[in-house]
Amino acid sequence: MQMTAIKKKIAILGASGYTGAELVRLLSTHPGFEITALTGERKAGQSMASVFPFLRHLPLPDLCRIDEVDFSQIDLAFCALPHATSQAVIRELPSDLRIVDLSADFRLRDPAAYQKWYGQPHGAPEIQREAVYGLTEFYRDEIRAARLVAGTGCNAATGQYILRPLVEAGVIDLDEIILDLKCGVSGAGRALKENLLHAELSEGAQPYAVGGTHRHLGEFDQELSLLAGRAVEIQFTPHLLPMNRGILASAWLKGDAQRIHAVLVERYATERFIEVLPFGAVPSTHDVRGSNFVHIGVVGDRRPGRAMVAAVLDNLCKGSSGQALQNANLMMGFDEAEGLLLAPLFP
Amino acid sequence: MQMTAIKKKIAILGASGYTGAELVRLLSTHPGFEITALTGERKAGQSMASVFPFLRHLPLPDLCRIDEVDFSQIDLAFCALPHATSQAVIRELPSDLRIVDLSADFRLRDPAAYQKWYGQPHGAPEIQREAVYGLTEFYRDEIRAARLVAGTGCNAATGQYILRPLVEAGVIDLDEIILDLKCGVSGAGRALKENLLHAELSEGAQPYAVGGTHRHLGEFDQELSLLAGRAVEIQFTPHLLPMNRGILASAWLKGDAQRIHAVLVERYATERFIEVLPFGAVPSTHDVRGSNFVHIGVVGDRRPGRAMVAAVLDNLCKGSSGQALQNANLMMGFDEAEGLLLAPLFP
Amino acid sequence: MQMTAIKKKIAILGASGYTGAELVRLLSTHPGFEITALTGERKAGQSMASVFPFLRHLPLPDLCRIDEVDFSQIDLAFCALPHATSQAVIRELPSDLRIVDLSADFRLRDPAAYQKWYGQPHGAPEIQREAVYGLTEFYRDEIRAARLVAGTGCNAATGQYILRPLVEAGVIDLDEIILDLKCGVSGAGRALKENLLHAELSEGAQPYAVGGTHRHLGEFDQELSLLAGRAVEIQFTPHLLPMNRGILASAWLKGDAQRIHAVLVERYATERFIEVLPFGAVPSTHDVRGSNFVHIGVVGDRRPGRAMVAAVLDNLCKGSSGQALQNANLMMGFDEAEGLLLAPLFP
Amino acid sequence: MQMTAIKKKIAILGASGYTGAELVRLLSTHPGFEITALTGERKAGQSMASVFPFLRHLPLPDLCRIDEVDFSQIDLAFCALPHATSQAVIRELPSDLRIVDLSADFRLRDPAAYQKWYGQPHGAPEIQREAVYGLTEFYRDEIRAARLVAGTGCNAATGQYILRPLVEAGVIDLDEIILDLKCGVSGAGRALKENLLHAELSEGAQPYAVGGTHRHLGEFDQELSLLAGRAVEIQFTPHLLPMNRGILASAWLKGDAQRIHAVLVERYATERFIEVLPFGAVPSTHDVRGSNFVHIGVVGDRRPGRAMVAAVLDNLCKGSSGQALQNANLMMGFDEAEGLLLAPLFP
Repeated sequence: MQMTAIKKKIAILGASGYTGAELVRLLSTHPGFEITALTGERKAGQSMASVFPFLRHLPLPDLCRIDEVDFSQIDLAFCALPHATSQAVIRELPSDLRIVDLSADFRLRDPAAYQKWYGQPHGAPEIQREAVYGLTEFYRDEIRAARLVAGTGCNAATGQYILRPLVEAGVIDLDEIILDLKCGVSGAGRALKENLLHAELSEGAQPYAVGGTHRHLGEFDQELSLLAGRAVEIQFTPHLLPMNRGILASAWLKGDAQRIHAVLVERYATERFIEVLPFGAVPSTHDVRGSNFVHIGVVGDRRPGRAMVAAVLDNLCKGSSGQALQNANLMMGFDEAEGLLLAPLFP
Repeated sequence: MQMTAIKKKIAILGASGYTGAELVRLLSTHPGFEITALTGERKAGQSMASVFPFLRHLPLPDLCRIDEVDFSQIDLAFCALPHATSQAVIRELPSDLRIVDLSADFRLRDPAAYQKWYGQPHGAPEIQREAVYGLTEFYRDEIRAARLVAGTGCNAATGQYILRPLVEAGVIDLDEIILDLKCGVSGAGRALKENLLHAELSEGAQPYAVGGTHRHLGEFDQELSLLAGRAVEIQFTPHLLPMNRGILASAWLKGDAQRIHAVLVERYATERFIEVLPFGAVPSTHDVRGSNFVHIGVVGDRRPGRAMVAAVLDNLCKGSSGQALQNANLMMGFDEAEGLLLAPLFP
Repeated sequence: MQMTAIKKKIAILGASGYTGAELVRLLSTHPGFEITALTGERKAGQSMASVFPFLRHLPLPDLCRIDEVDFSQIDLAFCALPHATSQAVIRELPSDLRIVDLSADFRLRDPAAYQKWYGQPHGAPEIQREAVYGLTEFYRDEIRAARLVAGTGCNAATGQYILRPLVEAGVIDLDEIILDLKCGVSGAGRALKENLLHAELSEGAQPYAVGGTHRHLGEFDQELSLLAGRAVEIQFTPHLLPMNRGILASAWLKGDAQRIHAVLVERYATERFIEVLPFGAVPSTHDVRGSNFVHIGVVGDRRPGRAMVAAVLDNLCKGSSGQALQNANLMMGFDEAEGLLLAPLFP
Repeated sequence: MQMTAIKKKIAILGASGYTGAELVRLLSTHPGFEITALTGERKAGQSMASVFPFLRHLPLPDLCRIDEVDFSQIDLAFCALPHATSQAVIRELPSDLRIVDLSADFRLRDPAAYQKWYGQPHGAPEIQREAVYGLTEFYRDEIRAARLVAGTGCNAATGQYILRPLVEAGVIDLDEIILDLKCGVSGAGRALKENLLHAELSEGAQPYAVGGTHRHLGEFDQELSLLAGRAVEIQFTPHLLPMNRGILASAWLKGDAQRIHAVLVERYATERFIEVLPFGAVPSTHDVRGSNFVHIGVVGDRRPGRAMVAAVLDNLCKGSSGQALQNANLMMGFDEAEGLLLAPLFP
C-alpha cells in the first residue's frame, strides 16, 4: 500500500502505563502511523512484551529513556506521563514538535485556576497558553492547527458531552446541574494503592473525591462558564465501581426532557462517535467498552421540568487514548476516525 | 441451654429464593428460633442442600408445598414469596398467625396507591389495612405489637435512613431531593434474565427503572409525605452495578451539610445497626456486606447550602432478610439484635 | 479502494447469540466481506442494535428468518446456530453454498462417535462426510478447498494447540495426558440458567462436566488417535471461572519439558497467531482477551520427565468466531489474518 | 452470662492484614474470647475502624506496637505477621505464652527443609522443634497440649484434606499425584503488586509459582512422606483466579474412584467442618465462602483406575484464621467449633 511510504513517526512518552499501552493498541491497526519510540524511565531497556504481554505479537521498539529519543525524527509525540512530570518534560522538548498531552497539565488556560486545583504554580505557563483543549467534537479546527493539544479529563469529557450542547442552547437551569459519575478503576492508572487491589475493590462501590474537590471541576468551570458567558459551577461527585473500563455519567437537570433530547440529537447528528439513543432509552458502559463511542440517553421524570441524562464512554479509549488519537489524526491530516472504528468488546 | 425449651417455631414460605436462603443463614445461629417448615412450590420434595448447597451443613426440613404446612405449630411465618403471590397466600393463612412479609404487597397503606404503582387492585385490602411498615428504627412499637409486618423495599429502606430524620427536622428543601442509587444484582432475585447473566452484567453499569417509574417511589411518597405533613415527591433512579450485594444511595440535597450531619448523628446515636461516619467521610458497600449494618456519610459542597449524603447497606440482609429478622425478634420478645450482630465479610 | 467492488456477501445464521455477535464485531473492520443477511428466528424483525446495543454504530440488516434469506446472493454463510439445529438447517441450504459452521454438528467424522457423544443419530450423515475439521493451523489446505468447515470446540481447540505437535513428535506419554481446563462463562452462550447468573457465578469456581463426559472428548479422541495411529484417550475436566472470556488449559504431561518446549517453538515458528513463550514463562488469559492469539507456556517440574504446558485463548474469538473468520478468509482467497490482527483488550 | 467472667484474653499480632482482620471478625461473636491487644507496627496508634472500616461497630483496642503489649495479661496470642518476621518476634515473646502462628515459619520441622524452601537458615530452631502442625483434624491431641501451633499453608491444607486419608489407606498411586489448584487473590495478602490490582486481575486467570517451586510443597513432602513411610513428592501448581476468597483443589489421582470416595466418607464421618458430597457430585467455592467448612467431591473417569477429587475451602477462614481459631479453641478448652459455625455467605 502506498500509504506506507508516508507513515508518520510517533513517539509515546510514558508507555508503561495504561494510557500508553492503550495508544499502542489503537495504533497497531492504524495505517498511517508508525511507532518509532516508546519511553519509560524506570523500565528503560525492557521490551514492551515484558511490561505488557498482551502486546507481544507486535514488533515494537524497546522502552528507552526520554533523553535517548531523537525527536528530530518524530512527527508527533503522545505524552502519557504523570501530571506535573508532563509539564517538566514538555518544556524541554523541541518547540516545534507536535504533541498530544494526556496529562492534566495543560487543560486549564488560566494559571490561577491551575494553581487553585493542582496546588502549585504551573511550571511552563508560556506553553500552557498555546495549548488547545482536546475535546475533539468542540475544538476541531483549533486542534487541526495546534502544536500542543491538551487531552481532557475522562470525567470532564463525559460530563461535557452531556452539558455543552444544553448550556449552549439554554435549555437547562445553569445553577442546578448535578453530575453523579460512576467510574471504572482503570482511570486511577497503574497506581499501587490498597483500595485498588482486587480484594478491596471488587464486589463493592463507594464515592470518592467528594465535596466539590475533584480536579476535573476546574475543567467544567472553565468550559461551561466560557460557553454560558457567566460563571457556572456544577455539583459533581464520582463513585468508584468494581469494573475496569467505563464511565457512566448521570446528570440530574432542570429543563424539559424532550427539548433536551432534541438539542442533543441535533447537535450530534453528524458525529460518528456519538450516538444519542431514542428518548427514554438508557445507555450501558457494556456497550462501549474498548471503543471510541459515546452513548447518550435522556429520560424525563414524573415531575415536569426535570430530566436525567446518562452518558457512557470508555475512559481509557474515548476518555483518553482514543481521544488523543482522534486529535492526532486531525493534526496529521488523516481522517479523524482512522484506527478508531473498532467495535466495542461484548460480552 | 435452657433457651432450647422455649424456641419459637418458624416457617419460611418461599425458601428457594435468595431472601429465603438469607433468612436460613441468619437463623442458623439464632438461639431462640427453630426452623420448622420451608416451602417452595416448584421444588417441593427437594432438600435445601440440593437447592442451596451452601446450607448443606445445617439440619433442615426438606422443601414442601405451603398446603403441607401445619400452621397451628408455627409461631411466626416469614413470607418470602414473589409480589402478588404473597397477598394471595397470606389471605388464606390462619388469621392469628404472626407474619413478616418480605414482598411488596403490604408496604402501601392506600389501595389507590397500590393500584397506581403495581397496576392492579389489591387482592387482600382488609389485610393491607392491618399491616405495619417494617422500617424497624421508625416503627418499633407498632412492629412489636403487629400481627403482620410488611418488609420495606431495599432501595426504599436505604433512602429513608438518609431522608426521614432530615425531613422530620426540616433541614432540607423538600422539593429538591434527588436520590441516585447504585445497586447490586441480588436485589433482582434469582430471575432468569439475559441482563442478569454474568457475561452481560459484570464489568459494566447502567441505569434502570428510569423516569420516576420505580415502584419504591410509592413507599417514599407515602412515608415522606406522612412525615412532612405535605406531599413530598423525590426524584429517584437506580443503577445496576456489577456486584452481588450492596446498595449505595447518594442523596443530593439542599441544606446545610453540617446541620444535616448533626441531625443524623443525633437521631442514630443509640441505634446499634446504624453508624454515622465523621463529617466528610464516605461509606463503602464493602464494609457492610453480609451484615445488618448501615453506614452513612455526609459531605458538603463548594457551594454553600448543598450536601451529598451517602448511605450503604446490604440489600439482602439489612435491606430485606436481616430487617425481617430484626422485626421478628421484636414480635417474639427477643433482643432486637439477636442473631444479627455478625460482622461484615471483608474482603 | 478497489476491494469494495469485489466484496464477498456474507450471511450469519443465528446472529442473536454471542458467537454471531462476535462475528459481526470482527467483520466490521474486514475490507473484503459485506454482511448481507442476519438471521434470528425468535427475534426476526428486530434490529441488531436492539438485540446487541454495542453494535448500534454499524449499518446492519435487521434480523430475519432463515427462510427469508436469498442464498443465491450469498458467497458464504456462517452458521452460529445451536447444536442439532445446525444440521437440520444446513441440510436444507443450497448444496453449493460455502459454509462455516460454528456448532458441534460436523466436528466428528464417524457417525457412531457422533451418536455416542451427542446421544442421537446424525441427521445429515452425507454432509457430515464432506465436512472439514476447522482447526486452521492443521487443516489449512483442506479448509481452503472445503465447501463446509466444521468449527472446533473451544476447549478442544485449546487442548489441541498444546497436544497435536507433541503427539506427532512422539515426545509425551500418550497414556498419561491430563487436561485441566479453566473456562470463562461466555462459552456457555446466552443460556438462561441459575448458575450463569452474576449472583451465582461471580466470586467462585467449580468443576463441571466431570468424569470423562464432556463432549469435546469426542474431538480429542478423533484427532489425537488419528495423529498417533492408535487410540489415545485423555483425561479432561473443565472448571467454570468467574470471567467472561478466556480459556486456560493446563496440560499435565509426562515427557522432557525442554524437548516439549522445543517441539512447540519449532512447530509454531511461522504461525502468526500462536506465540510460544520463553521456557518457564506462563501465559494469562488477560493477554489474549478479544483477540485471535494463542499464548503457550511450558514449565518443567522438580521431578524429571514431567511438564506442565499452559495455553490460553479467547473462547469467543480464536476458540470460535475468530477461527471461523480465519477459515472463511482461506475459503474466499483472502489473507488468512485479514480482520483478525486486532490487539487484545487490556486491562 | 457467667462465661464473661472467665473470658480468655487474646492478642493479635499483625492485625492490619487480612488474616488479622478475619480473626477479629470470627472472634467478634465468640463468647469465650476477649480481644485485649491488636498490634500493627506501621499503623500503631490508629483505630481498627480506620484501617478496616467494616469492623467499626466493634469496641476494639487501637493498634499498638508489639513492645507496648503486656503479655503477662494475655492467655493466647495469634501471630499474623509476615513470614520471617514471625520467628523473630516469637523468639522474643515470653516462653510460656501460648501462640497460634499463622505464618509459614514453623510449619516445617526439619531445619534443612526450612532452609531449602525458604532460602535462609531458620532464626529460632529451638522453637521450631516444639511447634505442632496445625491441621486440626489430624493433630487434635497434639494441638490441645501445644504451646505453639503452626498454622498450615492454605493450599497445603486444601490438598491434605484430599490426600491424607488416601495415602494412609493406601488407595492411590503415591508416585502419580497431581494437584491443580485454583486460588482466590486474598491468599496473596494486602501486598501492593501490579498483578493484584483489580484492573489486572479481574476477568482473567493464569498459573503462578510453577515448576515445582511453590513453598507449600515443603509441607506436602513432610506430611505425606511421614504418613506413607516413604518419600512422596506430588506435582502441584496453583492458578490465580479473579475472585477474592476460595481455593478449589483438583487432585488427579490413580486409584479406584469409588474406593477413594468410601475412604473419604468414612474418615470424615464425624468431622463437623468437612462434608464429603455424594459420589459424582462436585463442590463449588461459592458454597463455603466466609465459613470454616470444607466440601469434597469425588468423580471417576471413563478410564478405570482414575479419579479426580475436588475440595474447596475459604483460604482466609478454614485455610487460615478459622483454622487458627479452631486450634485456639482446643488449646483453651473450648468446644472446637465455638464461633466457627457461621453459615457461608451466598450469593
